[in-house]
Amino acid sequence: MAGSGFGTILRMTTWGESHGPALGVVVDGCPAGISLDEAYIQTWLDRRKPGGRDFSTPRKEADQVKILSGVFEGKTTGTPISMMIENTSQHSADYGNLASVYRPGHADFGFDAKYGFRDYRGGGRSSGRETAARVAAGAVAAKLLEQYGIRVSSYVSAIGPVRCDENAFDEEEIKKNPFCMPDAKAAEEARAYLTGLMEQQDSTGSEVVCVASGIPAGIGEPVFDKLDARLGYAIFSIGAVKALEIGDGTGVVKARGSENNDAFYMQDGTVKKKTNHSGGTLGGISDGSDVVLRVSFKPTPSIFREQETVNQEGEDCKISIRGRHDPVIGPRAAVVVEAMTAFTIADLLLMNRSSRV
Amino acid sequence: MAGSGFGTILRMTTWGESHGPALGVVVDGCPAGISLDEAYIQTWLDRRKPGGRDFSTPRKEADQVKILSGVFEGKTTGTPISMMIENTSQHSADYGNLASVYRPGHADFGFDAKYGFRDYRGGGRSSGRETAARVAAGAVAAKLLEQYGIRVSSYVSAIGPVRCDENAFDEEEIKKNPFCMPDAKAAEEARAYLTGLMEQQDSTGSEVVCVASGIPAGIGEPVFDKLDARLGYAIFSIGAVKALEIGDGTGVVKARGSENNDAFYMQDGTVKKKTNHSGGTLGGISDGSDVVLRVSFKPTPSIFREQETVNQEGEDCKISIRGRHDPVIGPRAAVVVEAMTAFTIADLLLMNRSSRV
Amino acid sequence: MAGSGFGTILRMTTWGESHGPALGVVVDGCPAGISLDEAYIQTWLDRRKPGGRDFSTPRKEADQVKILSGVFEGKTTGTPISMMIENTSQHSADYGNLASVYRPGHADFGFDAKYGFRDYRGGGRSSGRETAARVAAGAVAAKLLEQYGIRVSSYVSAIGPVRCDENAFDEEEIKKNPFCMPDAKAAEEARAYLTGLMEQQDSTGSEVVCVASGIPAGIGEPVFDKLDARLGYAIFSIGAVKALEIGDGTGVVKARGSENNDAFYMQDGTVKKKTNHSGGTLGGISDGSDVVLRVSFKPTPSIFREQETVNQEGEDCKISIRGRHDPVIGPRAAVVVEAMTAFTIADLLLMNRSSRV
Amino acid sequence: MAGSGFGTILRMTTWGESHGPALGVVVDGCPAGISLDEAYIQTWLDRRKPGGRDFSTPRKEADQVKILSGVFEGKTTGTPISMMIENTSQHSADYGNLASVYRPGHADFGFDAKYGFRDYRGGGRSSGRETAARVAAGAVAAKLLEQYGIRVSSYVSAIGPVRCDENAFDEEEIKKNPFCMPDAKAAEEARAYLTGLMEQQDSTGSEVVCVASGIPAGIGEPVFDKLDARLGYAIFSIGAVKALEIGDGTGVVKARGSENNDAFYMQDGTVKKKTNHSGGTLGGISDGSDVVLRVSFKPTPSIFREQETVNQEGEDCKISIRGRHDPVIGPRAAVVVEAMTAFTIADLLLMNRSSRV
Repeated sequence: MAGSGFGTILRMTTWGESHGPALGVVVDGCPAGISLDEAYIQTWLDRRKPGGRDFSTPRKEADQVKILSGVFEGKTTGTPISMMIENTSQHSADYGNLASVYRPGHADFGFDAKYGFRDYRGGGRSSGRETAARVAAGAVAAKLLEQYGIRVSSYVSAIGPVRCDENAFDEEEIKKNPFCMPDAKAAEEARAYLTGLMEQQDSTGSEVVCVASGIPAGIGEPVFDKLDARLGYAIFSIGAVKALEIGDGTGVVKARGSENNDAFYMQDGTVKKKTNHSGGTLGGISDGSDVVLRVSFKPTPSIFREQETVNQEGEDCKISIRGRHDPVIGPRAAVVVEAMTAFTIADLLLMNRSSRV
Repeated sequence: MAGSGFGTILRMTTWGESHGPALGVVVDGCPAGISLDEAYIQTWLDRRKPGGRDFSTPRKEADQVKILSGVFEGKTTGTPISMMIENTSQHSADYGNLASVYRPGHADFGFDAKYGFRDYRGGGRSSGRETAARVAAGAVAAKLLEQYGIRVSSYVSAIGPVRCDENAFDEEEIKKNPFCMPDAKAAEEARAYLTGLMEQQDSTGSEVVCVASGIPAGIGEPVFDKLDARLGYAIFSIGAVKALEIGDGTGVVKARGSENNDAFYMQDGTVKKKTNHSGGTLGGISDGSDVVLRVSFKPTPSIFREQETVNQEGEDCKISIRGRHDPVIGPRAAVVVEAMTAFTIADLLLMNRSSRV
Repeated sequence: MAGSGFGTILRMTTWGESHGPALGVVVDGCPAGISLDEAYIQTWLDRRKPGGRDFSTPRKEADQVKILSGVFEGKTTGTPISMMIENTSQHSADYGNLASVYRPGHADFGFDAKYGFRDYRGGGRSSGRETAARVAAGAVAAKLLEQYGIRVSSYVSAIGPVRCDENAFDEEEIKKNPFCMPDAKAAEEARAYLTGLMEQQDSTGSEVVCVASGIPAGIGEPVFDKLDARLGYAIFSIGAVKALEIGDGTGVVKARGSENNDAFYMQDGTVKKKTNHSGGTLGGISDGSDVVLRVSFKPTPSIFREQETVNQEGEDCKISIRGRHDPVIGPRAAVVVEAMTAFTIADLLLMNRSSRV
Repeated sequence: MAGSGFGTILRMTTWGESHGPALGVVVDGCPAGISLDEAYIQTWLDRRKPGGRDFSTPRKEADQVKILSGVFEGKTTGTPISMMIENTSQHSADYGNLASVYRPGHADFGFDAKYGFRDYRGGGRSSGRETAARVAAGAVAAKLLEQYGIRVSSYVSAIGPVRCDENAFDEEEIKKNPFCMPDAKAAEEARAYLTGLMEQQDSTGSEVVCVASGIPAGIGEPVFDKLDARLGYAIFSIGAVKALEIGDGTGVVKARGSENNDAFYMQDGTVKKKTNHSGGTLGGISDGSDVVLRVSFKPTPSIFREQETVNQEGEDCKISIRGRHDPVIGPRAAVVVEAMTAFTIADLLLMNRSSRV
């Protein structure tokens, strides 16, 4: 059934396969009057783009976005914003040998079980390329949030065993290294680690942190459309995500209530919290602090090393994947996490307009 | 806006405050022809019920469910199933002193910021009592899943620093100790730990594991209503949840692709996996293995120890919470996790009926 | 699948069969801060109530509504409002002889074809009694609309061949006669006509007019959630409706553009229309004029006269319906049309809060 | 808020303005395995296309559809089907003089009131051109219905005072005359009538009949997603529709129950009805007979005759519309009614898959 839409008041519908002529998204429900142009959307897409960085796939994707509707004279009109990205360099031949084999760690088997039919050209709809459409939609949401002083940002906090030192956090550094790490030393270690992995024809997991600041208290709709719940929905819809932590995350298991509760206090007539163990949400409603998410990505499943698997005919076989594959997902996925977070918060912000008479 | 509904084809709508006359749920979209009665639903509610166990609140809640519609001559009719649980022992007076103070770790402040209005009687809608309605709905879903050989179960895997030994796993033990732990030795340690905490007027976090077995490959709707995404939505809608891990969870960050990929093989004409690092889902679609969730609950925010906070008038103040509060959430929340998981899978199972012509 | 919910931001979920213990509705998404009590809801239900009027069924239904949640200290809290009406006088025995026969003009056959199962006690969920829940929900919506100066009203404009004279329209008269007609002379003629029909063991069709005034321009969400579209959805969800006309309705077929276009003009700084052929909506968006609906109800299908039909065993047979049945639907359905109209407009009014930054 | 999507399991999202670079639709939730190609979709679009017929606008629109995703090797894959139609001949200059004036009978004023902003180039999103996207989506739905032996067809039954004779119904004739009338004589009269109207710089209303045959009993989801309700939603979302009648429509007001009830009887082991006053639906569920809709379209609001109106500055003024406008809407809208009907039934057909265990 229809599963390619996300959001209620602000809603995106994505479409397109990795090897079709194009992919895109329709963003419906964006309020009228927001300044928007292709150049702004492009800055978001460029952050997801491969090829510009070491250690990401050499595939040359122009990923040029076109706005086809919903913007007139530089402003949103309130009608659906359709955006399209043409696929300029698909090479189906690269994937031809995989047509009848289920790649381990991929959705190939599930797609076949579900639809009785599979687009074997690079994963079709389950390719990471699908996320380009989400990033374009997230850029629109970020523009909307800007109007309310809300800002979403992200970075890679760990690649395999290499973890950034929180005390060395340097926001400027995020843009300087190819791993989106806010710690130059960790980035160097990550480079060495990934170089070794590639020699071994292997890949690694990674962790992305996303922070949304400036959210007023009161956002989130109990009891099922809580801020946490909608973020859980959004983040786990991104491929390769295996864990989401909000605030202290798994750390709360060992914590005590007296440590974990954030004390409220008044500052300049505003309710503040002395700590932010909650990660910005209490009872599913924003509490005025930063919303802090930590997302675990599994290792890239496409590895060159030979693997055991089965084929569509139900025979055991071996597979050796070739082609273009990043050895780690986080650096390109950080902007996707950011996009989904921005979109979710924007939708909830609009929902909250109906809380009172 | 409307946030009290969950599910698309199978949908629940919950209602009711902790201190109103009753609470309940309407389950809409349940297929006709399933055997269902109050006695079965009650077995689920009894697992959530406080008072029957040490270390949980002594409040006497009968939690007797009544089916008001949708079942005729012992079977579901396809029309909405309305279930109600009367609140028999609410004592608003217990909470009177909290009417104007925001409890740390609770939704009080957010509710007020959102609605300009707050039901101060025990948290109103943000009380854990709201989950009774979810459990009743989950029982209906479990009955539906039974028809397809799908079974969902849960247990508490950790309380504070006390963690069950996976090698000591004993399913029968889960029902024997008040902590729903599958390891008798860990349960004893948990008892000692909680006794100490209560003397210190404190509380602790906990971890719940939920397993769904028997799910056929092919369940989950790309790209936003993936199995993972709908589970993320469901689980993070439960109060006090701060992390959800699927399969290896946060462990994937340090893993290598060659370790994390589950090799496929054929067994008796069926595609199987040699390992289950994925936790039963690949690319958002079930892969035929058990779906395995790990959920981190924060410590109970209601602690007797004096805490710093602010009141509705915007003044700093102190608060000492009294009343009935469990020192740990997991043991009573396990069945809630199970209910939400069962409901989510049942909904996706029905969605999957439209995958092919 | 779930089909018992209506509305997006403001959403109702109804439940209950004609012969179960109770029926009810959950209204979710109502903004906080609206004054609401059972007495007000009851005034709406009393208008739908049978027994108090000639020519309606003598069944004694108290139809006493209880508010079970969502209202605290006389005001809505923003959480779901659950309302319940107990069925006090169901007599399943009345319908026992119909258990295996499909009544002509009823949903019996369709229900059986759909669910493989049928609640034969008075139509179960397809009974007109289901509309009591809608009326309770509509009352909540009307209270919300009151805050914005919007008022919805209705009357019966025709019963069989008897049609009210628009020039004789008298709003006070609507409450005085048992047919909700705004024309005393027509009401007298209707009485005579219905008396004759009942002697002939027959029934008749009717027409209801509903007017919503005070709606600001700009309500309605192009292109599918237009004001007209949502009203079409709402009104055709009421049983026995066979036509909906907006503004000039079927009269537009013969009209010319020069007649049908309503000229705009300025009055006291406001855009007004010289005529209202449009019925208050242009391009799916309210134009500031009264929204005017005309709804055609088919004759009551339950007639005492013997009819030809088939039974569940697939045999031709005859049926003679007994029991309590109104000879005309409109007089009791007018308030249902009003309720659905109010609910639809309230939902769209809240949707419109997201039109601009 | 998001209002450009329609359908639940099968869902379309349309986008695009009359004078932007393109318009299109994403059809999500179409089951895998249906044969589909651009040529088939094009046959539907060609029926809506202007320019090929007398009495429709001379604008040369190629209206060439491209399928951008969701179809692989000639079959649907279960993933979203994106279709795009480029606007090849937009001439914004044609509409420049209307930029600040509200056209009577159009959505200009409502759009401005709603969004504080208006795309004055030919109505933007409220242009009839938007329906091209719906027609493409309807074609996909029709292909799906074909698999189940369901066929939807339509024709124009009246243009102004000219009404087709039901006894002269000739299906072949529908394609032969430019008015889609099934009665050659009526078509000739319509030609004469329209010729006269155009000389008078005026337009006229029209009526379209749509019939869906082959629908099994049991389709439609009580109580809000009834077959009637979803059709009401779909049809009233089409611009210029002012009335929808199902079966006997407004004729039921004067009818008696003994006339209006359709008697059931058995034929070859199947339940049949002797008459079809119901128009194929009883209690909101299909009854196995043809579904019959009658739709009233208002006269084209764009007339050349001078009209009174106001401008954005709030001044009374006159307007003379120029450009390309049909004098009657029905002949081009018939295929739109058919498309929306097909889409609605296809969605309900998929919903019905969840009625039973």
